[in-house]
Amino acid sequence: MLNGSRMTNRWDTGRIEAFSDGVFAIAITLLVLEIGVPESDFDDLWHGIAHQWPSYLAYATSFITIGGIWMVHHAMFRRLRYANTRVMQVNLLLLMAVSFLPFPTKLMAEAIRTTDAERAAVIFYGLSLFAISIIVGALWGVVARDPELLEPDVSENEVNAILLRTTPGLGFYAAVIAVAIVAPHLAAFGYLVIAIVAVANVRSTTITQN
Amino acid sequence: MLNGSRMTNRWDTGRIEAFSDGVFAIAITLLVLEIGVPESDFDDLWHGIAHQWPSYLAYATSFITIGGIWMVHHAMFRRLRYANTRVMQVNLLLLMAVSFLPFPTKLMAEAIRTTDAERAAVIFYGLSLFAISIIVGALWGVVARDPELLEPDVSENEVNAILLRTTPGLGFYAAVIAVAIVAPHLAAFGYLVIAIVAVANVRSTTITQN
Amino acid sequence: MLNGSRMTNRWDTGRIEAFSDGVFAIAITLLVLEIGVPESDFDDLWHGIAHQWPSYLAYATSFITIGGIWMVHHAMFRRLRYANTRVMQVNLLLLMAVSFLPFPTKLMAEAIRTTDAERAAVIFYGLSLFAISIIVGALWGVVARDPELLEPDVSENEVNAILLRTTPGLGFYAAVIAVAIVAPHLAAFGYLVIAIVAVANVRSTTITQN
Amino acid sequence: MLNGSRMTNRWDTGRIEAFSDGVFAIAITLLVLEIGVPESDFDDLWHGIAHQWPSYLAYATSFITIGGIWMVHHAMFRRLRYANTRVMQVNLLLLMAVSFLPFPTKLMAEAIRTTDAERAAVIFYGLSLFAISIIVGALWGVVARDPELLEPDVSENEVNAILLRTTPGLGFYAAVIAVAIVAPHLAAFGYLVIAIVAVANVRSTTITQN
Repeated sequence: MLNGSRMTNRWDTGRIEAFSDGVFAIAITLLVLEIGVPESDFDDLWHGIAHQWPSYLAYATSFITIGGIWMVHHAMFRRLRYANTRVMQVNLLLLMAVSFLPFPTKLMAEAIRTTDAERAAVIFYGLSLFAISIIVGALWGVVARDPELLEPDVSENEVNAILLRTTPGLGFYAAVIAVAIVAPHLAAFGYLVIAIVAVANVRSTTITQN
Repeated sequence: MLNGSRMTNRWDTGRIEAFSDGVFAIAITLLVLEIGVPESDFDDLWHGIAHQWPSYLAYATSFITIGGIWMVHHAMFRRLRYANTRVMQVNLLLLMAVSFLPFPTKLMAEAIRTTDAERAAVIFYGLSLFAISIIVGALWGVVARDPELLEPDVSENEVNAILLRTTPGLGFYAAVIAVAIVAPHLAAFGYLVIAIVAVANVRSTTITQN
Repeated sequence: MLNGSRMTNRWDTGRIEAFSDGVFAIAITLLVLEIGVPESDFDDLWHGIAHQWPSYLAYATSFITIGGIWMVHHAMFRRLRYANTRVMQVNLLLLMAVSFLPFPTKLMAEAIRTTDAERAAVIFYGLSLFAISIIVGALWGVVARDPELLEPDVSENEVNAILLRTTPGLGFYAAVIAVAIVAPHLAAFGYLVIAIVAVANVRSTTITQN
Repeated sequence: MLNGSRMTNRWDTGRIEAFSDGVFAIAITLLVLEIGVPESDFDDLWHGIAHQWPSYLAYATSFITIGGIWMVHHAMFRRLRYANTRVMQVNLLLLMAVSFLPFPTKLMAEAIRTTDAERAAVIFYGLSLFAISIIVGALWGVVARDPELLEPDVSENEVNAILLRTTPGLGFYAAVIAVAIVAPHLAAFGYLVIAIVAVANVRSTTITQN
């Protein structure tokens, strides 16, 4: 399996997927830990539960966003025969950004409830999603530069289609961040809409879209 | 493996199972983080430990419920050759609902101890389980609509048997939620009974029950 | 793979192992969340770090204990061709008990520091380990009753050797719990010694010990 | 697969990798839970977010460090045919040390913000990384002593190259810990630099570097 220098940069993908799945699964699940109703709201608990809506919004947005990224990750890695070291490094960067997301998620949920800091929190959350989208694109960009990494039946058209597919997300996020400057509440729902649209449009293969 | 448009909607199931297992495992394990004895109860710790019984009840109920859902999930996915995108999406919705469960679990444990909000918390918990049951049924319903997804040796009878099997849960949950309106304590134990009965009756195959 | 009624109780073991590994890995890792130095101890931080020794003791004890149980679990499941539903159920009970362990661990760490409740906390922790040991034995007992579950090259001697191997743990735990009544500090270290001895003596196969 | 005494110490590596991946993934993801902005900083949230820089520094350092260790772990285990019991034990020790890291990480982040305890916290963090590096070296040392564990195509040169590769880390950590005595702030960034350099230089195979 190790034939000297030619194989220097080959990593099998199975364990990368397992490790990445673990990180995605935990990042997605930790989000719920921040949700809670203070005991002072227990005298009218239904109202107290309803009052936590910014937490549910932030939870659903981050959950569906990470779920969509996981699907894209899945669609990418099933096309790889091997990973090289650069893929490993960019993938680690992606995992670091995804694992960080519970922090801006919590911040947005808290700030919407407490009004004052709402704008900053919603923009900060959007910038985090924007950064994650860039890293997802970079991950596939690294693959596109070394076609030997791909399974033999993956065409160049398909590689380009995936690359294009990751780009529009950036435009949408930029637009919603701009909205956040004037209407942070609206922008918070905008992130959710982007996440739902992304998951609704995800495809296992993209070549047939051309 | 990718033969143009015909295969557009095929995802291999191995990584979906791995990711789902991760989310189930974390959701089930996080539940313990909410359990604790306040230091003010340390002068009579045995009493303090016993006093946390609503936490143990909520922990055991959610643990066994999620464990039972995992078993059903296992029984479903071992019958699939491929998943399509719709299965991926409904599965993500199921994971989101299961990951949310630690919140109503914590709420029920707290509210039973503090009495006032008990009814609302027990009903809210039941509604969460009810919603999860609907999604489990929907997941299999999506599979039943596209028999090509199934392993070749899975008969239509078996598919229908699994579909039926997920339905009675809804009736039981509705009944216990109705009980919760008049007797929330009793209903809290009712959820535990449903979970135990479900795990006690789980089968690897269902066709032979007909 | 599904040949009617004869196979009714067959589950493949791969996904059970994956799910169990997830739960073990999380239960073992969550333990660190309880460790912390209060800010009031920051003026002499080295002393503050040293002062947390009961947390380190509890962390190491639970970590090594769960690690040892994971090794036994690994040794058991590599001998199984299939699991039946009873194995699934007892395994779920084992996971529930292991996932519960962070609670008595935290309690023991807190109580040793605050002295008053020490005896109760150390005994409660020991009872939890005792219960887990019983369930581990029960899991293998269920396997022993249905030899068809085993890989063909596993002899009856080997099955019995594993069964015996799980039993002495119970005696040791009972002894240390008895010690805890008069000397809780000593007993807390006793649990650590049992865990280390168990991991030091673990074997991949047991047949050659006879 | 079990041929009596000769195979007494053989464990297949698949499940060890899965369990280790789980622990690595969780340890790396839990780090974010400690990050948060106190509500008192919400009137100027951008400043409040910026003010948490020690948390981001500690998060990134621990994340990249654990990521690098995971890559080394991956590179080691892909060369193993089997593990023996000693490998299992040292691996468990490694996982225990890695799972412990969130505690010194949190301490360093808190202490840099509160100044007083900074030196002790930065040194304590460095000592933790130093201990982890020793255990990583010990893990491979155990493998090197039993060449039968290795895949047939792994040469002695390659084994030695991996062994050497783990050693320089110790020197760097010792140097940065020494720096921490006089300039803790600088040392905190030093750990980050070591982690980045390690991940930037990681190779799938090392033999071809000679």
